Amino acid sequence: MSLDKKINVAIIGIGRIGSIHFKNLKSNDSVNIKYLCDIAADDSWKKKYEGYTVITDYEEVLSDSSVDAVLICTPTDLHPAMVSAAAKAGKNIFCEKPLGFDMNEILNSYEDVKKSNIIMGVGFNRRFDKNFYRIVEHRQLGNIGEPQVLKITSRDPEPPSIDYVKHSGGLFMDMMIHDFDMARFIPDHEITEVYATGANLIDPAIADAGDIDTAIVTLTYDNGMIGVIDNSRQAVYGYDQRIELFGSKGMAKANNVNDTTTEYYSSEDVQSDKPMFFFLQRYMDAYKSEIEQFISLVEGKEIGDRVLGSYEDGIKAIKLAEAAAKSLRDKKPVKIEDL
Amino acid sequence: MSLDKKINVAIIGIGRIGSIHFKNLKSNDSVNIKYLCDIAADDSWKKKYEGYTVITDYEEVLSDSSVDAVLICTPTDLHPAMVSAAAKAGKNIFCEKPLGFDMNEILNSYEDVKKSNIIMGVGFNRRFDKNFYRIVEHRQLGNIGEPQVLKITSRDPEPPSIDYVKHSGGLFMDMMIHDFDMARFIPDHEITEVYATGANLIDPAIADAGDIDTAIVTLTYDNGMIGVIDNSRQAVYGYDQRIELFGSKGMAKANNVNDTTTEYYSSEDVQSDKPMFFFLQRYMDAYKSEIEQFISLVEGKEIGDRVLGSYEDGIKAIKLAEAAAKSLRDKKPVKIEDL
Amino acid sequence: MSLDKKINVAIIGIGRIGSIHFKNLKSNDSVNIKYLCDIAADDSWKKKYEGYTVITDYEEVLSDSSVDAVLICTPTDLHPAMVSAAAKAGKNIFCEKPLGFDMNEILNSYEDVKKSNIIMGVGFNRRFDKNFYRIVEHRQLGNIGEPQVLKITSRDPEPPSIDYVKHSGGLFMDMMIHDFDMARFIPDHEITEVYATGANLIDPAIADAGDIDTAIVTLTYDNGMIGVIDNSRQAVYGYDQRIELFGSKGMAKANNVNDTTTEYYSSEDVQSDKPMFFFLQRYMDAYKSEIEQFISLVEGKEIGDRVLGSYEDGIKAIKLAEAAAKSLRDKKPVKIEDL
Amino acid sequence: MSLDKKINVAIIGIGRIGSIHFKNLKSNDSVNIKYLCDIAADDSWKKKYEGYTVITDYEEVLSDSSVDAVLICTPTDLHPAMVSAAAKAGKNIFCEKPLGFDMNEILNSYEDVKKSNIIMGVGFNRRFDKNFYRIVEHRQLGNIGEPQVLKITSRDPEPPSIDYVKHSGGLFMDMMIHDFDMARFIPDHEITEVYATGANLIDPAIADAGDIDTAIVTLTYDNGMIGVIDNSRQAVYGYDQRIELFGSKGMAKANNVNDTTTEYYSSEDVQSDKPMFFFLQRYMDAYKSEIEQFISLVEGKEIGDRVLGSYEDGIKAIKLAEAAAKSLRDKKPVKIEDL
Repeated sequence: MSLDKKINVAIIGIGRIGSIHFKNLKSNDSVNIKYLCDIAADDSWKKKYEGYTVITDYEEVLSDSSVDAVLICTPTDLHPAMVSAAAKAGKNIFCEKPLGFDMNEILNSYEDVKKSNIIMGVGFNRRFDKNFYRIVEHRQLGNIGEPQVLKITSRDPEPPSIDYVKHSGGLFMDMMIHDFDMARFIPDHEITEVYATGANLIDPAIADAGDIDTAIVTLTYDNGMIGVIDNSRQAVYGYDQRIELFGSKGMAKANNVNDTTTEYYSSEDVQSDKPMFFFLQRYMDAYKSEIEQFISLVEGKEIGDRVLGSYEDGIKAIKLAEAAAKSLRDKKPVKIEDL
Repeated sequence: MSLDKKINVAIIGIGRIGSIHFKNLKSNDSVNIKYLCDIAADDSWKKKYEGYTVITDYEEVLSDSSVDAVLICTPTDLHPAMVSAAAKAGKNIFCEKPLGFDMNEILNSYEDVKKSNIIMGVGFNRRFDKNFYRIVEHRQLGNIGEPQVLKITSRDPEPPSIDYVKHSGGLFMDMMIHDFDMARFIPDHEITEVYATGANLIDPAIADAGDIDTAIVTLTYDNGMIGVIDNSRQAVYGYDQRIELFGSKGMAKANNVNDTTTEYYSSEDVQSDKPMFFFLQRYMDAYKSEIEQFISLVEGKEIGDRVLGSYEDGIKAIKLAEAAAKSLRDKKPVKIEDL
Repeated sequence: MSLDKKINVAIIGIGRIGSIHFKNLKSNDSVNIKYLCDIAADDSWKKKYEGYTVITDYEEVLSDSSVDAVLICTPTDLHPAMVSAAAKAGKNIFCEKPLGFDMNEILNSYEDVKKSNIIMGVGFNRRFDKNFYRIVEHRQLGNIGEPQVLKITSRDPEPPSIDYVKHSGGLFMDMMIHDFDMARFIPDHEITEVYATGANLIDPAIADAGDIDTAIVTLTYDNGMIGVIDNSRQAVYGYDQRIELFGSKGMAKANNVNDTTTEYYSSEDVQSDKPMFFFLQRYMDAYKSEIEQFISLVEGKEIGDRVLGSYEDGIKAIKLAEAAAKSLRDKKPVKIEDL
Repeated sequence: MSLDKKINVAIIGIGRIGSIHFKNLKSNDSVNIKYLCDIAADDSWKKKYEGYTVITDYEEVLSDSSVDAVLICTPTDLHPAMVSAAAKAGKNIFCEKPLGFDMNEILNSYEDVKKSNIIMGVGFNRRFDKNFYRIVEHRQLGNIGEPQVLKITSRDPEPPSIDYVKHSGGLFMDMMIHDFDMARFIPDHEITEVYATGANLIDPAIADAGDIDTAIVTLTYDNGMIGVIDNSRQAVYGYDQRIELFGSKGMAKANNVNDTTTEYYSSEDVQSDKPMFFFLQRYMDAYKSEIEQFISLVEGKEIGDRVLGSYEDGIKAIKLAEAAAKSLRDKKPVKIEDL
């Protein structure tokens, strides 16, 4: 694609995550935001999004040949059909995670993606967190040696609404899916088997909704290394996001990010800031870098290593979530190839 | 001022610092950037600043009655005259530090500022650093008790060019002026006496240019507390910016900010990131918050505590710099009231 | 026991661990070291342990009615018989971990211990590490709330000799046994089920010897909480010993202990010390506190909470090690009650 | 001196500091504690120090030709005469700091020390703190490059009694004397000029006793580098002991030592331990290493670098304290050579 013109982008679904991308695209000098598309858009949106073309029908986006790329930020169950339609229309696609709830739908869409010749990115924003990415750099520099143990801790500051829980696909699909992606991305190895332990310790209503709120999942990899992910829906001290990769030559360990570096020394103790509250704070910069890399890929720019998740990455993360759910149900380890 | 309309702002001087403010104002929804004004603007600027009105004569800005506020980001020696002219034209003013090199000129401008009824802000960006401001919050909460000792370390990653050094007004005026402001702002007390020690340890060319490159200045305050600032023009490990306030009930201590939180454990040692390279990295957010508060003040919004430096703050910092220079020359402590 | 006289102690087995206790008892003002007993003691020991009574036959110790307490620091397979004999002789006993290799022998000894009216302590030194014990204090203060997730990382700086590996009882029995004890001690809850993943990543000779060198074990508890332990026989950066307890009200997290607090800021990075090399460095103080508490218990002193592991604690740790080994063999979770 | 026999040591003055040395010498296998000498020793000491020879007259020590070394731990004003007498008696001497209050007396004793052929050590224990010594190692390795700025923070957790203050020689002599020694030891350069600022902020009774309780002293060195020491008699958060050495190639920075590494993450903040309470905690190991090096020197062992302070070191620290006191009185900088 020529670098002479701006990339025409349409955002489909202007909810919480769509709004983040909107804000980041506004300050991207390579981008022209051609459409904001949301089925719920009414007249009040005209004032709110003054200067932008707000529409409700995403097919209108796809039929506009000037649109270079679409961001699919709609509810999860709509993703596969929209990805297929956009791929068939030849649009470059950035799709939020997870790619869908139904693996058959996802695999069908994948066929359409493979047939088209488009840039396809999946919204695994944590890959762009500079702290986590520093671990990747250490691995690439050979500082880790052979990876032997991966550890991921990922805890939300508060559980979502019970209504959300009911439609989330469950903790493994909704929350740990990010960690499953990082568990592949950080060591650059594939997971072959998982064993899941889960518990309901935070809110009985989550159990009533058929989900767990606390989980530990053990991972076995194709290179023999092992790993573990622990998740909790509620850490009272904020968003706990840590990863460490241990290997034959050393360990890289990304600690939490706090609001400030300021410490208060009292007569009782030394107090410092908690981790940043939640993903909007912690991953603000990561969302920006993620969408910048997608745009650069659409522009055909040289970007060094591609960090942006692919459709295959999206599928693999879902398979791992399904395997974990099966392991928890069956109370035994599950091989990914047996799914 | 009514909140119904956007604030019309002109930036005068589009150099390094003017460009930072330009970028931050672009993403401020309350602002309309009416003019970019720079004496050096030529035809190439039209393309570079497409969509903006670029002019070369700042009097044109002042004579446009729709302009609400001006940012003065020109070379230091031009500040006093421009402040006077803008104040007389009734424009709200944000002026970069230092306010000028000649105290008489500055005091004359101050008369014009006082006569006008404008918002006047001075660019002491560090006041808006969230780490340093957390110290202020601890003081306000009573956590420090009576302030007793203030300590500021401020080291640049590399010295400016010798040409810059020659026209900088010297280390105290150019570099430590920020620390003099923080030395008043953090404890909320006035400095009554300074004693300066200086040395040339980094580059003999700096000495040849008549300046020092390393300094320690001791401070005495109106409430009896004492303090110390140390400056170096070159810390090979990056921009070293630390402040601590010690008092009868505890100490608050703002540490450096590093690029990432990631640690690498090797067979030799544990390696972590250096402090962020320089002020553009470390104070990126502070510059944004600073100009936001200025705009909010111009809008007449409730903002809680005013953090933004005033013209008086600018004058006091310069007096402290002059006192330090005199102390170094005379090799004895200098009372501020004796200046 | 009256506080008027010193406690007469005999150390049986003066190897690596026996020597640590010897050193600590020497500086304990409540103790008289009555015998050093080691089957390998020859004439050269007389000079080495000048001033002490060195003997080779531990029955001589047991038949001396003035001996108040014995420390059993002999090879693991000798522990059960010696514990039985000492218990029958009415001696207070401190026995090193693990209590033995054969559960039947151990349970037989346990009968003898229960019949006697002695102080019985087991050498789980990590309970006395002040960093880990601070977690216990936070739990006791209610700062954790309901414990939900326990995490233990425990990595040695280098693997033992292959010969040692062959007679060690395996990683779970020899190394993770400490972590199994801490996994019960820190949250004060019992483990009901384990699932073990293991790998050979460090030295094929360890595999040839029938053991693994890297392991992750998931834990399920009687109160519904879950936990995970990860072990490695070789961390090139030293002895990695971390524990965190996460609960409904907060998390307590014991980080590694480094040799110094000194940081070096270079033009490349910030370098700090690695974790202390191995258990002799990290747990030097813990060994001292452990044996002091044993002596205090023998003296009948008020000691506040008993931290010292009991014979039951020793048995439970072994059962957990056996369950982990079975889980690894069978590739499925193992309930402790099913053993 | 032959290594075949133990060193016969007498401790003169068994107060707070003498008792520390006593405890450390007890566990030193190279030492035989020949006498405990204290003018206040009465019959109760016999039981307290059972097994040791307790005497009251230090001349008895000096006249015993089997005594190899004496530790002088008596009140400061007695030091010069005792050093002279011990030197004349040919005893190796370890003398606590400061060497005395009267410079003439000290210099007279110095003549006696120089005439004798003895090992003479002065009790600057902080030189043996492993955190501070790591800075020295970085300097020796060339990691600092040319030293440019030294910074020392030294704050006590609580002021001494007013009675102690009256006889202490003042803050510079009693407290900052340690920092003056470190200010020479860490960069290995001599101080040529000091400027002192002081304040009474903690307790008016200290002012009534003629002393200050808070001070900042600026230092100028023979190599052009500069430095600063800040002292406070009361830090509510404990013993604040930090040093940093900044130079052309990097900075080494020794942070405080806390009781544990354990952090507690609450819903409010992250809490960690305060610095260790006072010198007995923080410098416990340093006192042990200090006296070990003295004994090794007496034994004639190879010890690598001598860390132990010399009589000259003791004299220089006192001169710096006197210069600081004069600077505070005269309110101007004082050159050391002008004293």
